[in-house]
Amino acid sequence: MTIRTTVWGENVHERKNQVVADIYPKGMHTCIADALNADAGITASTVTLQDAEHGLTEAKLAETDVLVWWGHAAHGDVDDAVVERVCNAVWGGMGMIFLHSAHFAKPFKRLMGSPCNLSWREAGERERLWLTSRNHPIAAGLPDHFELENEEMYGEPFGVPEPLETVFISWFAGGEVFRSGLTYKRGAGSIFYFRPGHETYPTYHDANVQRVISNAVKWAYNPATRIANPNDAPNTPVDKALEPITERGPRLHHDGEAGYR
Amino acid sequence: MTIRTTVWGENVHERKNQVVADIYPKGMHTCIADALNADAGITASTVTLQDAEHGLTEAKLAETDVLVWWGHAAHGDVDDAVVERVCNAVWGGMGMIFLHSAHFAKPFKRLMGSPCNLSWREAGERERLWLTSRNHPIAAGLPDHFELENEEMYGEPFGVPEPLETVFISWFAGGEVFRSGLTYKRGAGSIFYFRPGHETYPTYHDANVQRVISNAVKWAYNPATRIANPNDAPNTPVDKALEPITERGPRLHHDGEAGYR
Amino acid sequence: MTIRTTVWGENVHERKNQVVADIYPKGMHTCIADALNADAGITASTVTLQDAEHGLTEAKLAETDVLVWWGHAAHGDVDDAVVERVCNAVWGGMGMIFLHSAHFAKPFKRLMGSPCNLSWREAGERERLWLTSRNHPIAAGLPDHFELENEEMYGEPFGVPEPLETVFISWFAGGEVFRSGLTYKRGAGSIFYFRPGHETYPTYHDANVQRVISNAVKWAYNPATRIANPNDAPNTPVDKALEPITERGPRLHHDGEAGYR
Amino acid sequence: MTIRTTVWGENVHERKNQVVADIYPKGMHTCIADALNADAGITASTVTLQDAEHGLTEAKLAETDVLVWWGHAAHGDVDDAVVERVCNAVWGGMGMIFLHSAHFAKPFKRLMGSPCNLSWREAGERERLWLTSRNHPIAAGLPDHFELENEEMYGEPFGVPEPLETVFISWFAGGEVFRSGLTYKRGAGSIFYFRPGHETYPTYHDANVQRVISNAVKWAYNPATRIANPNDAPNTPVDKALEPITERGPRLHHDGEAGYR
Repeated sequence: MTIRTTVWGENVHERKNQVVADIYPKGMHTCIADALNADAGITASTVTLQDAEHGLTEAKLAETDVLVWWGHAAHGDVDDAVVERVCNAVWGGMGMIFLHSAHFAKPFKRLMGSPCNLSWREAGERERLWLTSRNHPIAAGLPDHFELENEEMYGEPFGVPEPLETVFISWFAGGEVFRSGLTYKRGAGSIFYFRPGHETYPTYHDANVQRVISNAVKWAYNPATRIANPNDAPNTPVDKALEPITERGPRLHHDGEAGYR
Repeated sequence: MTIRTTVWGENVHERKNQVVADIYPKGMHTCIADALNADAGITASTVTLQDAEHGLTEAKLAETDVLVWWGHAAHGDVDDAVVERVCNAVWGGMGMIFLHSAHFAKPFKRLMGSPCNLSWREAGERERLWLTSRNHPIAAGLPDHFELENEEMYGEPFGVPEPLETVFISWFAGGEVFRSGLTYKRGAGSIFYFRPGHETYPTYHDANVQRVISNAVKWAYNPATRIANPNDAPNTPVDKALEPITERGPRLHHDGEAGYR
Repeated sequence: MTIRTTVWGENVHERKNQVVADIYPKGMHTCIADALNADAGITASTVTLQDAEHGLTEAKLAETDVLVWWGHAAHGDVDDAVVERVCNAVWGGMGMIFLHSAHFAKPFKRLMGSPCNLSWREAGERERLWLTSRNHPIAAGLPDHFELENEEMYGEPFGVPEPLETVFISWFAGGEVFRSGLTYKRGAGSIFYFRPGHETYPTYHDANVQRVISNAVKWAYNPATRIANPNDAPNTPVDKALEPITERGPRLHHDGEAGYR
Repeated sequence: MTIRTTVWGENVHERKNQVVADIYPKGMHTCIADALNADAGITASTVTLQDAEHGLTEAKLAETDVLVWWGHAAHGDVDDAVVERVCNAVWGGMGMIFLHSAHFAKPFKRLMGSPCNLSWREAGERERLWLTSRNHPIAAGLPDHFELENEEMYGEPFGVPEPLETVFISWFAGGEVFRSGLTYKRGAGSIFYFRPGHETYPTYHDANVQRVISNAVKWAYNPATRIANPNDAPNTPVDKALEPITERGPRLHHDGEAGYR
C-alpha cells in the first residue's frame, strides 16, 4: 500500500513564460510528482487547473490520500465549488501540502481563516532554511540547515494562525526571516505549508526540497477511513443519552429535527 | 476610555418564540449589552440582523473594539459581504467573542477554517463548566467551576482547530463533555468562543456567564491602531532591501508590480 | 523492525495490596507489556523500580524506542540520576508515555515544568473518554467515546502546560472533567499523557485502553537516530560563519571556549 | 497601583569585566530597572545573586508581580531552593521574563522541561528582530522590525517547547535565525523569553529593547491573587461529590488521606 498523492499544478507560467518552461518542461507539478514517485512508499499523479473541475472531482479526491497544491498566477480562476470540495476532503481526513505562492490559494486561505499575507521580493537571493523542531518527521534525513542559492524572498509578519509546530524558519540574504514550514490540523486533516518554490528558479529539482515534500506527504497521510460527512452535527435524543436524564424546560426543536445552520 | 463593544444579535427567536421573548423581552443582545454596561470599563451597544447591513457598516466596525456575536436560526441570512467585512476587522485587530450557537455562524466558520460541528441535545440538562487554565484573565473572579442548571448539550468532538488555550471544559448530565472556552488569534485579532447560551434558558442572566463575557471583552481588546489593510502583501524592492543585495536570475514581476492573488 | 518498547512499573502495590495483586498477578507492567506485544509492530519488555538503576541503565535506554511509565506510591524513591538520564533520552528522541498517577512521577514533572496537580476521588465511578481530535493516530480504531465502568476520578484544573493537542477529555459520574490524552514534544522526544489506570481496577485489561497505549507507542516512535548530546550548545566561530562576517566589538570568550552553563 | 517588578541580576561580569562595567556602571539589572521605572505603570526594584538568598526571599517574591531574570556566568551558583521557590511563585501566578543567556538559567530550564540549548557566536554582528504576531501586546508601539547593530548570535534549533506564541524571530548577519520572543504559561504564571542582551554590548540601553521588556512586564502581570499552594492535589470525597454517586469497588486510600507524591 502506497500513499496515493495528487499534485495539483496551476500550470500557467510553465506554458507562458520561457524561463519557467525551460526549468520545468513538463510543468512544475510533474517535476514534483516525479520526485515523489522516486519514494517507494508514494504513488503520485498530477492534475491541473485546466482539467475539468480542475482535475479534483469527488472521485479523484476520494482516491487521494494527500493533495499537494502549487498555484500563483491564477488563484482567482479556481472554482469556489472545487475549493469547498477540497476543504471537505481535508476535514474528512485527507492530508494537504501547500507550496510557496499557494499561501494565497483559495483553499489555503479558507482553511487558515486568516489573511495569509506576507512581504516579498523577487531578486534571486540566497535562502537558508533552519530546522526548529529537532528530529521532526518532516525533516527526516535533513541537516539542521540547508540552502537555496536563488529564491524569491517572503518576509514576516506572515498572516497565518499560530501553527501546531514551526518546523523550519528561513533566513534571506536581504535581511528578512520567514516561518517556512508550519503544521496545522483542520477537522481530521493534517496540513503542511512549505515556503520554497518560486517558478523562475529550479527549486523543485533540489534534493532537500524534494525530501521535505516527500516527508511531508508521509507525515500528512492518515490511514483512517475518510469521514463521510465532516460537517455533520448529529442530534443525540434524550432517550439515547449515555446517562439517564429527564427532559426539562422548553424546547425549540422537535424530536429528530435537524439543527439550524 | 472604555472598551467600545458591539453586541450583534440575530433577534429572530426573541420575536417569534414566546418562551424566548419572556426570558429576553428586549432581546438577548440587549441582555448581554446591559450586563457589559454594568462594567465601568465597557461601553456596549447593540445591532441586529434586521438592521441595514445587519448594523455592521464600515463606520460601526471602525468604532467597535470588540464584537460579540450570537446567532442561531438565521445564519444563512447573514450577507457574505458583511461576513468579509467583519473578518477584515478581526484581522486588523478587532476582538471578537462568539457565543453558543454562533459556532455555525458564517464569520466563525470563516475565521476557524474548519467545520465547527458538534453533537447536541435540547433537554434542559445540567451543565458544569470547569476552569482548565488557572488564573486566566477570562476566568478572573470566577471559581474553579460553576453550574447552569438548564442548558442545551453540546458534545465533542468539536470541529475547531486546536486553540491557543483551552480555558473551560463543560460537563453535561447526559454524559458528554465539551471544550467551552477557547482562545484564538487570527491576523491581529483575538477571538474567544464561549459555549453557554441556548435561547430557551435564562443563561445570559447568570452572573458567572456575564462575568466570563465581560472578562473576555477585556481580554480580546487590543488598544493598538487597527491595521488599515490587513491583507496587504507589500513588495520590498531590491534597492530598499535592509541588507545590500544584487538582483540575480530571471523575474516574473516588473518593479513596483503588485503580486498575484 | 519493531518498536522497542520498555514498560517501567513501580511494582509496589502489586506486591503489597491483595486487590491489586489479584487483578495484576504478574504486575501492571507485565499486563501492559503483554498487550503491547500482541501488536506485531511492537516488542515490549519490562523493568521495575526494584531493578538495579530501576532497570533504566544507559544501555537499556539506548535500545528503548518508547518508554511507558506507571508509578504511584513510590515516586520519591526514583533516583534523581535516573530521572535525568530518562529526560536526556527523551530530549534525544526517545518517545515516552506517562500513565495515570505518573502525573506526579519525577520525569513527568521535570519534562512538563509545571505542578502537574489535579483533584481526585477514589470511588470506582464511571469514566467516559471523549475523542477531541478526529482521526488522531492515537485514537485509531477507537469510537468517538468509550467507557470505564470503575475508575478513580481526576479533575481539572490539571496543572500541565497547554499541550500540542488535546486528544481525549474524560467525563466522570461525580461531576468532573479531565483532559485525559495530551501530546507534547520536549527536545526531539514526543510525549503522551494518558489518564486511566488506577491500580485497584482492571483498566489495563480493557481493550480500548490497550489500543490507546499501543497507538501512542507508534505515534511517539521516532525512527531518527538518537541525538547523542541533546544539551549541546555549540559555538560557531566567525571564520565558520555561513555568511562572511567580520568580528566586531569586545568579546568575553576566547576562540573555541565553551559557553557558560 | 503599579506593577511591582523585580529585576534579578547575576552581577558578575559587571564587576569583573571592564567592558561590561563601562557599559553598565550600575549593573545590567539597574539599567533594566531604570528603564522599567520610566513607565508610569511599573515600579521596579533590583536584587542580585550576591544578596542573601539571592534577594529572592519568600517575602520578596510575595510582593513581586513580575520577575525579570538575567544571568550568564554563574548559573550554577544559584541555589536550588531558590529555584524551587521562584518556580512555585510562577506556578502561583507571578509573571516572569527571561533575558538572553538566561536560556540556561536554572529556573528557565526547570520551567521549560527541555534542554534550552542553541548555537552561538560572539562576533558583534547585526541582529534584526522581526515581529511575527501582529499587534501583539508585547510588540505595542514597535515597528515590524528593528535592529541591534552589535549582538551575540544565537541560532536554531533552540531547544525549547513549542510556545503558545512566537512573537519575534531574529535574523543574524552571519546567516542564522532564532525565535527571539516566545510566550509560555506554567501553572498560573505567564512567561516570556526575550533573546537580546549580551553583556559586552549596550543592548539594554536600546529604546526598542526597553520597550519590549516593559510591554512584556505588562503582558505577564496577572492581577489575580497568587495561588497559595500551586502544587495542591485535593481529594474530593464521595459525600462531597457535585453529583450524587455511590462508592464502588476497592480503595487504596482512607477518607481524608493525602495522595501519594
